[in-house]
Amino acid sequence: SWVWRAPPPGPVWEEENFQGKRCEFVVECPNIMERGFQKIRSIKVENGPWVGYEYPEHQGQQFILEKGDYPCYQAWSGNSSYRTEHLLSFRPIKCANHTDSKMTLYECEDLQGRSFEICDDYPSLQGMGWCSKEVPSIKVNSGVWVGYQFPGYRGYQYIFERDRRQGEYKNYTEFGTQAHTNQIQSLRRVQH
Amino acid sequence: SWVWRAPPPGPVWEEENFQGKRCEFVVECPNIMERGFQKIRSIKVENGPWVGYEYPEHQGQQFILEKGDYPCYQAWSGNSSYRTEHLLSFRPIKCANHTDSKMTLYECEDLQGRSFEICDDYPSLQGMGWCSKEVPSIKVNSGVWVGYQFPGYRGYQYIFERDRRQGEYKNYTEFGTQAHTNQIQSLRRVQH
Repeated sequence: SWVWRAPPPGPVWEEENFQGKRCEFVVECPNIMERGFQKIRSIKVENGPWVGYEYPEHQGQQFILEKGDYPCYQAWSGNSSYRTEHLLSFRPIKCANHTDSKMTLYECEDLQGRSFEICDDYPSLQGMGWCSKEVPSIKVNSGVWVGYQFPGYRGYQYIFERDRRQGEYKNYTEFGTQAHTNQIQSLRRVQH
Repeated sequence: SWVWRAPPPGPVWEEENFQGKRCEFVVECPNIMERGFQKIRSIKVENGPWVGYEYPEHQGQQFILEKGDYPCYQAWSGNSSYRTEHLLSFRPIKCANHTDSKMTLYECEDLQGRSFEICDDYPSLQGMGWCSKEVPSIKVNSGVWVGYQFPGYRGYQYIFERDRRQGEYKNYTEFGTQAHTNQIQSLRRVQH
C-alpha cells in the first residue's frame, strides 16, 4: 500500500545554535528520547513543514516548523507567556497549495450556528468581520491551517488539518492537548 | 493643508486585562507618560493598524497592533527572548490594500546586489527561494509590511512603510532602534 512520506525536515540538535548531538529523522518521530536524546533545542528545517511538540507522542504545545533556521526555542515559540524550551516529538504535515486551502469557522461548538468560510490568511479575524475573539468550532475543508490565540500570529498555536479528525474540530479540547480556551484571533494557511 | 488622520485605535489601559486607568487617543501618542500614565499593559484595538513601541518617541521594540484584544504583553510581543511588558508610545500606520502591497528585497546593503520583488505574505522566506536567513536592505514600493526575525512570524518585529524614509531601508540600523542584525526569516503585508 502507498504511504505518503515527507522529505526529511533537516537536522536537529540537542543544544542551542546547532551545537551538541545531532540527528536527522525521515519519518515521524514520536519520542526523541528513544533515540538517546534528552531534548531538541535547535533545528534547521530544510524541507517543511513539520510540527514540533512540547511532549512525546505529539502532546502539549504545538509549533509549526517551516523552512528556516531555529537556533533557539524563541524561534519556534512566539509565545512569551509559557516557555517551551525544547521539543520532544515531531511529525510532518501534508499541505495543500495556498489557493486550494479552505476552512469554515462556526459561531458555536459542534459545527453549529452561523458559519464563515475563509480561504486566505487573517492576521486579525475581528478585522475581517468575525465578531468575537473566540472560534468555538472549525471544519477544515482542505489544506493545513495555523490558528493563534492573539492577533498578528502570536500566542498559542493550533494546527488544523484536513487529514486529521476528518478536518473537524468540534470544540477547543480538540484543538490541542494544551488548549484551555477557544480564543483564536488570527489564522493562516500553511503550504510547502 | 490636509492631514491624514487615523480613526482612534480604541481604548488602552494601565493594567492587564483591561483594568485600571483608561484612555483613548485619536492621534499619534509619542509619550503616554505625558498623559499621566506609567505604562500601557492592555489594549483593545478597534480601528487598526497602529504600532506600539517599548519606549517614548517611537523607540525600542516595535509591535504591529491590528484589530483585536490584547489583554497582556504576551499578546503583542510574540517574542519570548526579550520581554516588553508595557508600551509607552503609539502611532497609526497608513496601509495599502493587500493587492497593492509590493516590496523589493536586496542581497546586499544600500539596495545593491540581486533583488527579489514580493507582493504576498511569506511565513518562510527560505521556503520561497531566498537563500539566506538575512535581508540586508529593503525598498518598500507600496503599503506597509512586517518583517520577523524567525520563520512563521516570530521573534523581533520590524515595520516597513512606503511612507517613511521614502520606503528605503538601506541597512539593519534603519529597520528599528532595537535591530542588531539583519536576520529576517518571514515577511507579511499589513492592511486595514
